[in-house]
Amino acid sequence: MKKTLNVIKIGGNVIDSSEKLHQFLLDFTALPGDKILIHGGGKVATELGVSLGVEAKMVEGRRITDIETLRVVTMVYAGLINKNMVAQLQARGCNAIGLSGADGNVIKAVKRPVKDIDWGFVGDLDQDSVSTETLGSLLNAGLVPVLCAITHDGDAQLLNTNADTIASAVAVAMSSQYETALIYCFEKRGVMRDVEDEDSLVAEIRMHEFDTLKNEGVVSGGMIPKLHNAFEAIKSGVAAVYIGKADELPQINGGNFGTRLIQ
Amino acid sequence: MKKTLNVIKIGGNVIDSSEKLHQFLLDFTALPGDKILIHGGGKVATELGVSLGVEAKMVEGRRITDIETLRVVTMVYAGLINKNMVAQLQARGCNAIGLSGADGNVIKAVKRPVKDIDWGFVGDLDQDSVSTETLGSLLNAGLVPVLCAITHDGDAQLLNTNADTIASAVAVAMSSQYETALIYCFEKRGVMRDVEDEDSLVAEIRMHEFDTLKNEGVVSGGMIPKLHNAFEAIKSGVAAVYIGKADELPQINGGNFGTRLIQ
Repeated sequence: MKKTLNVIKIGGNVIDSSEKLHQFLLDFTALPGDKILIHGGGKVATELGVSLGVEAKMVEGRRITDIETLRVVTMVYAGLINKNMVAQLQARGCNAIGLSGADGNVIKAVKRPVKDIDWGFVGDLDQDSVSTETLGSLLNAGLVPVLCAITHDGDAQLLNTNADTIASAVAVAMSSQYETALIYCFEKRGVMRDVEDEDSLVAEIRMHEFDTLKNEGVVSGGMIPKLHNAFEAIKSGVAAVYIGKADELPQINGGNFGTRLIQ
Repeated sequence: MKKTLNVIKIGGNVIDSSEKLHQFLLDFTALPGDKILIHGGGKVATELGVSLGVEAKMVEGRRITDIETLRVVTMVYAGLINKNMVAQLQARGCNAIGLSGADGNVIKAVKRPVKDIDWGFVGDLDQDSVSTETLGSLLNAGLVPVLCAITHDGDAQLLNTNADTIASAVAVAMSSQYETALIYCFEKRGVMRDVEDEDSLVAEIRMHEFDTLKNEGVVSGGMIPKLHNAFEAIKSGVAAVYIGKADELPQINGGNFGTRLIQ
């Protein structure tokens, strides 16, 4: 039987609040078994950019990573956020090791080709991006990888890569060796039948129910691509994907954390 | 017989020149066997501090690490410099993994006690600071640790620690498992009998010759504490300490790199 592995992604909403982050890192430490944490950015990168006069260039609401922006996110994601998070995990007894994609060649990306828009130093992933060998060695040594959203192209160029995408790619790649769960922590409790009603959480969605829920309007807007990507990960070998609220993470052991997506 | 391990430290003079750094990383990659790289800072941290309006507070020519300075050095050392260096090493085929002292609890330090001067968030090392277990696991996995000068106190606080001190502590601690050489790369070719004469390099100094060389004035000024610390490392188990110029590193295989200090 395969060992289990939890791949957990947290975003800016947790990182921006030192209180929320503190509690999350306690809950993360308490999770039994092998685990990998992936974190996004947060307001700090934007604030540092402003302090340094690095103008945020946006297209269609998304940031372009020019060389100055890449410098800022490398410093903030791989330096400030990653190392403070690791130091906090270590203080709680979790033997964390913070990594960018360049470290141990853990995540190798391809600079996004310029078509209509030049996104700058943004890296996309493919099926060979994740070094399961390095991640496996670290897990076997009792270490807990903490990945930031900086990758590299294998030719000395660092790249900025979406943290959700990294989490999914890691979960898919590791599912050859582990029974893998992919856990996205975000602002909401999960998929809600009624956004106004905190108790209307949809506890489980099977792949064949996805279209029905879209037609019913239960899944709409930004949730559609999120769930689409989640089911793609499941098709590629991930056992289950969870979407829920960071502060409810401890409930995952009882099987009632957020919305659980399965085959 | 113990395996050999080279612990190599480079300073700001190499890091500040992209050309020198490029060449050094090629030479480092070419070095056979197990190895660990430790790097200091460079001008970038000072420049970023200036850009952010973080005033450098100096006492006796040494920088005080207040909380703002700690933020800056964490971003620059652990983020910008460390990750770019790792990406370059990966591009050259060296499976580098960049670490702060918090990562895998590799280097645990103690915040310097306040006596006459409050040095701020500066960490000192003791004989239990280095996790030989984590470093050993990484080396056994074929990884090449690249350490920056950021450590932690085990209680969630990052600290700024002298890179020479980290290099020495790592070499001493690892010498229980490895035949360890500690290699300091700096501006000069090594200890010179005549600073004006490039050919007056002292190739080897044995511990008992140190006092004589001090009395003769061959070793003077800043070289005295450097050599004193080197011989302390040798007393604590390091097989040899080398002091030489970064761009002469390839000569270490022929046994004629810089000044070699031995028992």
